[in-house]
Formats: sequence, C-alpha cells, structure tokens
Amino acid sequence: MPYTVPVLEDITQTALAARLQHLLDNKTKPLGSLGQIERLAKAIGLALGTEAPALKDPQLVVFAGDHGLAARGVSAYPSDVTWQMVENFLAGGAAVSVLARQHGIGLTVVDCGVRHDFVERPGLLIRKVAPGTADALEQPAMSDAQCHVALSSGAALVRELPGNALLLGEMGIGNTSAASLIMSRLTGMDIVDCTGAGTGLDAPAVQRKIGILRQVLERHPDARDPLAVLSTFGGFEIATMAGAVLEAAAQRRVIVVDGFIASSAVLVASKLQPAVLQRCVFAHQSGERGHALMLAHLKAEPLLDLGLRLGEGSGAALAWPLLQSACAILREMASFESAGVSRQEAAEPAVR
Amino acid sequence: MPYTVPVLEDITQTALAARLQHLLDNKTKPLGSLGQIERLAKAIGLALGTEAPALKDPQLVVFAGDHGLAARGVSAYPSDVTWQMVENFLAGGAAVSVLARQHGIGLTVVDCGVRHDFVERPGLLIRKVAPGTADALEQPAMSDAQCHVALSSGAALVRELPGNALLLGEMGIGNTSAASLIMSRLTGMDIVDCTGAGTGLDAPAVQRKIGILRQVLERHPDARDPLAVLSTFGGFEIATMAGAVLEAAAQRRVIVVDGFIASSAVLVASKLQPAVLQRCVFAHQSGERGHALMLAHLKAEPLLDLGLRLGEGSGAALAWPLLQSACAILREMASFESAGVSRQEAAEPAVR
Repeated sequence: MPYTVPVLEDITQTALAARLQHLLDNKTKPLGSLGQIERLAKAIGLALGTEAPALKDPQLVVFAGDHGLAARGVSAYPSDVTWQMVENFLAGGAAVSVLARQHGIGLTVVDCGVRHDFVERPGLLIRKVAPGTADALEQPAMSDAQCHVALSSGAALVRELPGNALLLGEMGIGNTSAASLIMSRLTGMDIVDCTGAGTGLDAPAVQRKIGILRQVLERHPDARDPLAVLSTFGGFEIATMAGAVLEAAAQRRVIVVDGFIASSAVLVASKLQPAVLQRCVFAHQSGERGHALMLAHLKAEPLLDLGLRLGEGSGAALAWPLLQSACAILREMASFESAGVSRQEAAEPAVR
Repeated sequence: MPYTVPVLEDITQTALAARLQHLLDNKTKPLGSLGQIERLAKAIGLALGTEAPALKDPQLVVFAGDHGLAARGVSAYPSDVTWQMVENFLAGGAAVSVLARQHGIGLTVVDCGVRHDFVERPGLLIRKVAPGTADALEQPAMSDAQCHVALSSGAALVRELPGNALLLGEMGIGNTSAASLIMSRLTGMDIVDCTGAGTGLDAPAVQRKIGILRQVLERHPDARDPLAVLSTFGGFEIATMAGAVLEAAAQRRVIVVDGFIASSAVLVASKLQPAVLQRCVFAHQSGERGHALMLAHLKAEPLLDLGLRLGEGSGAALAWPLLQSACAILREMASFESAGVSRQEAAEPAVR
C-alpha cells in the first residue's frame, strides 16, 4: 500500500502563540534575557498545544541501516561496524546508551536495513526493508516500493511509542554520503559544500568521497522530487526516519533532531510537508561539514555547538535537559506581579 | 586579618592527563567525535583527580550585593530589585530557583552587601560587608579592609559547603558596570569593548553608561594590581565570589562559571593565581557585550551560546547536565575491546 504524507496544520499563527509570549515576557527577568531558551519554550508550547508544556516519557529511536555505497570506500570504518554498534547500543555501552540512561529517555533500536541477522529482543525492532541498500553508483539505492515500505514502517512504529517527544538517532556506515547526496539535490548546493569527513576520513579521502558522490549525482539526473531523491540516494534508516518524523509531527510530538543524517531525514520530510519544522527542535550543529549550511537552509537555530560528529542521537540526548528547562521556566517561574518585583518601567531615570 | 591567596598546584601536566586521554580515545566512537564533551570530561577528571569522575552534591551560590554606582543610572532597573530578587530566589520563583530544582542543585543566596535588612532563614547567608558599595565615581567602591573581609568570607563559606562542585551565580543591580571596569583595567581593553546593555539599556543609555565608566576609570588611574582593581571597582558580591573561587580551586572542586559578572570574579582570581582556570568550566557565552572578549582573554571554551544575559547562575545551571554527561561518558562507555567493535585501522581500504 503506498505511503500517504499526513496533513499538518500551521500551529504558529495562533492565539496560543500570543499567550505564550505574554507569559514569557512577564516572568521575573529582563525581557528576552533567557535568549534561545525562551524561543524554545514557546516552540514546545506550540508543538504540544499548551501554555504549561510538560514533556512525558521521551523516546529516542536509533534508526540503523547499511549502504551499498559503503563498498566504494566512502567511510573510514567497515560496514560490519553498523551491526556491532547496534549490539553495543543494546548492551548499554555506546554514547547514546549512556546519555539516554542518564536522562531517563527510552531507547529503541530499529533495524531498518542492516546487513546482519539480529536476534529480536527487547529494545530492538526488526523492520528490515532489505539487508543494505543497493550501490547508488549503479542503480537507485532502493525501489519506490521499498521507500514506501520504509516510510510506512517509520510512521507505524511512532504510533506504538509512548510519550510526547521523539528524539532522532541513527547508525549506518556510509550514511553521511546518503545525507550529503540528499542535501545537494534537495537544496541545489554543490556536493563539495555538502560533504565532510564522516567518521574521520583524512583530507585526500574526503576528496575521493566527493568525487564518488559527484558521479552518483550525475548517474541520476532525474531524481528531483523529495521521494525520488530519498529512494535514489537512500538509505533505509533515513527513509524510515522521515516516515517517523512526519507521523510524530502529525501527532504533535516534539521532535528532537540530532546531527547531519537526522537533519537530512527532516529535510526530506519538510519538502513533503513544510509545517513539520514547526514541531522540530534542532539539538546541535554538528562538526560534520555541510550541517551548518543544511541548518541555515532549514532556518533552524541549533541549541548546542560542541563539535559533535558521532550521530546515534548523542547530540539529541545531550540537548534534552535544555528542553526540560524551557518547559520548567514556562510552568514554574514567578511573574513580576506574583513575586512583587519592580519592573523596568518603575526604574529611576537612566540619566542623571 | 588579611586575606591570603591559596597556592594551587598545576594539575594539567600529569600522568592522569595522559590516562584520561587514552580512556577517551578507546571509547566506542570515532576519535574525538564527542568534541567539546571529551575535553570537558578530561578537565573534570583532572580537577577531581580521578579517571572515574563523579560529581556529588553540586552547590549553586548566588552572591548578592548593591552598587553605589547604580545611583548614576547605569542600570535599567532600580537597586531595590536586588533585594526583591533575593526574596524571589528564596521563594523559588526565579529562573535559577527553577533550574536548580530541576537538576537537584543546592541553592544558597549570600547577602554580601545588599542595601536591605533580610531576615535570616534557611538558604540565605548574611555575610554583609556593608549595605552597598560606595560610588566609585567619588571614591573606591570599598576599602582594602572590606575587600579582604569579602574574600575571606567567600573562602569560609565554601569550606562549609558539601559536594565537589561550585556553581557561581550573582545578583546586583549595577554589577555589569563593576565587571566592565574590572575587565577593562585588568585586560587593558577599552571600556567600549567591555560594556553592554546589562539588564536592557537602549543604545543611547549604553553610551551614557560607557561615558560614566570611562570617568570612573580616569578617577582611579593607580588601581592596577588585581586586589586594588577589585576593591576600587567593586562590588562586594564579586569580591566574595573571587574568594569562593580561589578556595574552591584549592579544594579541587569543579567550578562552573556563569556569565559576565561571574567571569569577572574568575578573571580577578586568575590574575592572583592562574591555575584557578584549570578547575573552571565556563558554562556559556553571554549575550552581554564584553563577555566574548573576556572569555577569549581567559582562553575559555564556553559550553553554551544561547544569548543568555540574565545572570543569577542561570547559565551555569542550564549547562550542568553537560558536566554530568561528560562524567558518565568517561565512567560508563564501552571500549572497542570490551564491546567487540571493529576499529578504524581494520577498515577496508579507503580507495577502490
């Protein structure tokens, strides 16, 4: 059955937006002095549709998949690291495992298309479209039908998740290449500006990676609309994530976007349904070349800029307490009236 | 009794530093891919003197004081807001109250020199040197003796605090002026580059503020050494904080520096004892003009850049979970060996 993009309402031009701004402006602090935390509080209030937002039972999903293009040497690590890291997530030893545990965030790993047979167990969902995408230098990474399966499976798994916040994570050796291809084709930026070192290529290897990606783009001149771009350049984890993002947005969950690859899934989703961005919080600006430009294209204001370039959802988990802080500020801070604090208007004259 | 600056050992050039770096490099992630979080983990390990750092019973202290210079109209708010906000901190309605509660951080307010008589109660320490500093345009903000009392009182109160981390906060109408004066004199930067809008002056009022501060500097051409600068330009909350910082450093507590005013106290402390900076984590770069340059002067790498300009310790509290994350990464993440994950060295050749 073909995937249907959900319809999203505009949530920004509402009476609630004005009420949220009024509440923030009357808290006991100079106007706007909590900077981006105030904009974050307003955005979460709008996404959840309330003046007293409370984040509940947050869920971090690590979408995992392998890439045919990895065999071309676009990554510093072998494809086997994808499934090995999935085992590490489940064993609790990866960065995202540690951070999710720290913050009480539920962690689910989804095999969207890893080249490995996992034993199903708690914390792992097998939603394998195929064992790795095809080599995009030879043919589209996936068929249209496979792309629809991945999108639908992402939507379906979000419907089963508790809570009102979805944190995006991913694992897939080769997936910065897929994200760079998607970015270049959907934004019109040159592949040079969209391509970085991934897990740690040196400068000559990055140049070779750019050369390969340029060939891939030339091989598929007609892949232009968002779904064609997604299926042509992959991967299964990005397609499944895009489906999850659109469904989470339809359910008015807060979506916490991690780094470069998660942003590429959101980029695809936003081309299908721009209002998806109204429900997104961008956790951080990655150290991966291309991410700053992609965030600028999305008009996103990332919370952190710590030179992270790990993926997994680690940046989303690191930023998570800032979302909780923003909600607490809105719910718990006193107003000038309630606290009996003098306002700026009552100040002594500024000139003597 | 005159205040004595404690002696601090260099903690960076040690065998522990090498062991911490080795541990981080063997975690299951591409080398350096957790960016600033890795440098933070190493810094905390060094400060606490362990490969398995655990932050315990963190204490946020809000140092409060009034400023004679406030009567010159250097702030958008009247001096009464200082004591009103102290009441708000204690009642739990201020930003820092909300954030400290969120993260389980102990909150203590210290009256270092507020122009108000408080009723002593849990959470409030009365360490009042005098009810507000003198007007620095007419005379030094405080006497040398008062400065020594403030420094000693800051050291003494840290000795009474539990835990191994001190988060710095402050409240004092007019204290961005004191911080700008200290910064300009101790760094040699022009007062224009050190002066901002504080709680929200408009552009003409900032120009008037700069004019007043320039006169203050001209009035005291001979205040040059760190303690003379501190006593001449004030305030009591900055002097008490500087004493607290030096004592916390001597005890190898982790010091979490908030914004512009807290940084000015650390600037003074670092001129007395440079190794104090080895124990400091800079929570954020403030929206206050001058802070970016002060951080650069201190060679500090702030964690957040959210346009905050509230003070109170709000930025320190917002950044706090990142310190906990850094410790958790060091203590809990698996190594390549323990997790059975292939290393970069084992990768397929990067060129095909």
